[in-house]
Amino acid sequence: MPDHDVVAIGNALVDIIGHCDEAFLARHGRSKGSMQLVDAPTIEALYGAMGQGIEISGGSAANTVVGVAAFGGKAGFIGKTATDQFGQVFRHDIRAAGVTFDTPPAGAGEPTGRSLILVTPDGQRTMSTFLGVSPHLGNGEVDAELIRSARILYLEGYLFDRPDAKAAFREAADIAARAGRQVALTLSDPFCVDRHRAEFLELVRKSVDILFANEAEITSLYEAASFEDAAERARADTRLAALTRSEKGSVILSSGKAIEIAAAPVEEVVDTTGAGDLYAAGFLFGVARDMPLETAGKLGSLAAAEIISHLGARPLVPLVELARKQGLLA
Amino acid sequence: MPDHDVVAIGNALVDIIGHCDEAFLARHGRSKGSMQLVDAPTIEALYGAMGQGIEISGGSAANTVVGVAAFGGKAGFIGKTATDQFGQVFRHDIRAAGVTFDTPPAGAGEPTGRSLILVTPDGQRTMSTFLGVSPHLGNGEVDAELIRSARILYLEGYLFDRPDAKAAFREAADIAARAGRQVALTLSDPFCVDRHRAEFLELVRKSVDILFANEAEITSLYEAASFEDAAERARADTRLAALTRSEKGSVILSSGKAIEIAAAPVEEVVDTTGAGDLYAAGFLFGVARDMPLETAGKLGSLAAAEIISHLGARPLVPLVELARKQGLLA
Repeated sequence: MPDHDVVAIGNALVDIIGHCDEAFLARHGRSKGSMQLVDAPTIEALYGAMGQGIEISGGSAANTVVGVAAFGGKAGFIGKTATDQFGQVFRHDIRAAGVTFDTPPAGAGEPTGRSLILVTPDGQRTMSTFLGVSPHLGNGEVDAELIRSARILYLEGYLFDRPDAKAAFREAADIAARAGRQVALTLSDPFCVDRHRAEFLELVRKSVDILFANEAEITSLYEAASFEDAAERARADTRLAALTRSEKGSVILSSGKAIEIAAAPVEEVVDTTGAGDLYAAGFLFGVARDMPLETAGKLGSLAAAEIISHLGARPLVPLVELARKQGLLA
Repeated sequence: MPDHDVVAIGNALVDIIGHCDEAFLARHGRSKGSMQLVDAPTIEALYGAMGQGIEISGGSAANTVVGVAAFGGKAGFIGKTATDQFGQVFRHDIRAAGVTFDTPPAGAGEPTGRSLILVTPDGQRTMSTFLGVSPHLGNGEVDAELIRSARILYLEGYLFDRPDAKAAFREAADIAARAGRQVALTLSDPFCVDRHRAEFLELVRKSVDILFANEAEITSLYEAASFEDAAERARADTRLAALTRSEKGSVILSSGKAIEIAAAPVEEVVDTTGAGDLYAAGFLFGVARDMPLETAGKLGSLAAAEIISHLGARPLVPLVELARKQGLLA
């Protein structure tokens, strides 16, 4: 009997969040709402140009497992940090959230990865990520025992951006499949999908049990003319998929059916960072606990609404309490 | 003609802000609302025990000069960081706020100082500070030219906690006095006053032109039975003093008169960190620009109200715009 609900592998990043206007993005050649990989000199230059920041632990899949823990689930994480201060911050925060995290930090070499997140007045976030040491999961660091201990293995598409991380992704997916566990994948970002379309398509068709994607990602995956076309293709290719559509809510595709889930209400959208990550947290927690898919989707919407109401992609309140107030959890 | 409004010397710290309940403070022997100096093992242990944090540049006098800049003033800072990531964060943020900051980071040795700030549900903050490299201002790092360039030199009482920093404090005060500049001091913390009462009293009587203190600090300084008694003593000892009293507002003492300033309204007190620092920012900006003392006090109240409405001690909005809306600035 698995004793974790969800174990994830992802890039261990610290977010540096600041505000900027649209002109700043244009001046620095950034496409609003996207995630762009940058090298060390580029992130330094961008950091030098931006205003004051605040630092909060992040990383897409890491945010998701923290969200699972905030619902009262048992979650684990595998990811690479360095021994620098940002690494210490990342390790502290994920453990303080109650997530099992035992990947040893790298002793020397590249620093802990970080993501500069620029929030525009409309609450949209634009990310420039310097991966640093995060993709360099070494041999034997993909903890097979931890993966087998979880009902669901959750993988971020971002891992495909570097060979070491991609190898870790494939190794983990094999371990989970052989142990009869479910494998979940998030496509992460439309540009990431563009970079790895053929491999993602093969994964989705052959290895993935639960697929997460937003509108831009799923239409990019299938190079589809519309969301509806893309959803139709995803329905044929997957056993279970959750497609998120920002304020239009989400669509869950399962056994030929489509279940529409409304977005949960938000007073003010402060920062959309982590909306997809936290939707995945609620949905995965629901699926791991064998709840009806509609409930799982509503937990996802609830978590996404909480995260976009404040800066940063880690929940500020115990999500289990929010869910109880809504009657979604006992 | 001075080209800076305010130049400050203080400990360069990065704040790590988390939430806790009163039981956590009791368990770890922390007195709510205070600042306690701790060594490296103690801050590590406390950090390990606390929940998820967010990192924001801080440091009392540094917050004040950032506030002066947010009012549209010209401000400078002198303080010591290390070459680690927190040092980079501190240097970036203070410069991004428009503050002149040229103190070189220390090459090796102790890390950048940090302050663990635990916010209780009532919005009160309790600080445990590991000073790290921050008090080690070397010879010649007290930039005489920068100090002479400012109408007001602002010093934090916390500097008295370490010999190097105390020497820098005295050197800076001498430079300012010889150049005919005003010297402002904040008493910083009641326990800090307790540690250095005799020296603070001598400073206040002989070297300080503008004194900042809250109720606990001024009553501690004079070991007075009441705020009124302490204020009476301060009026006799100082040319200009601003005494803050949280939700009761502040009292400005000048030329035998007492001007009462109401606290500015706040919808919800989220985190009191930096309330005194930002009051000082508004007041110093007003005094540096030769505004009436009542206006200076109102600018202080306004800045304090902004800072306690959110996490962290750096303003989230241009204070000059808030002040214009209130009709306090043209």
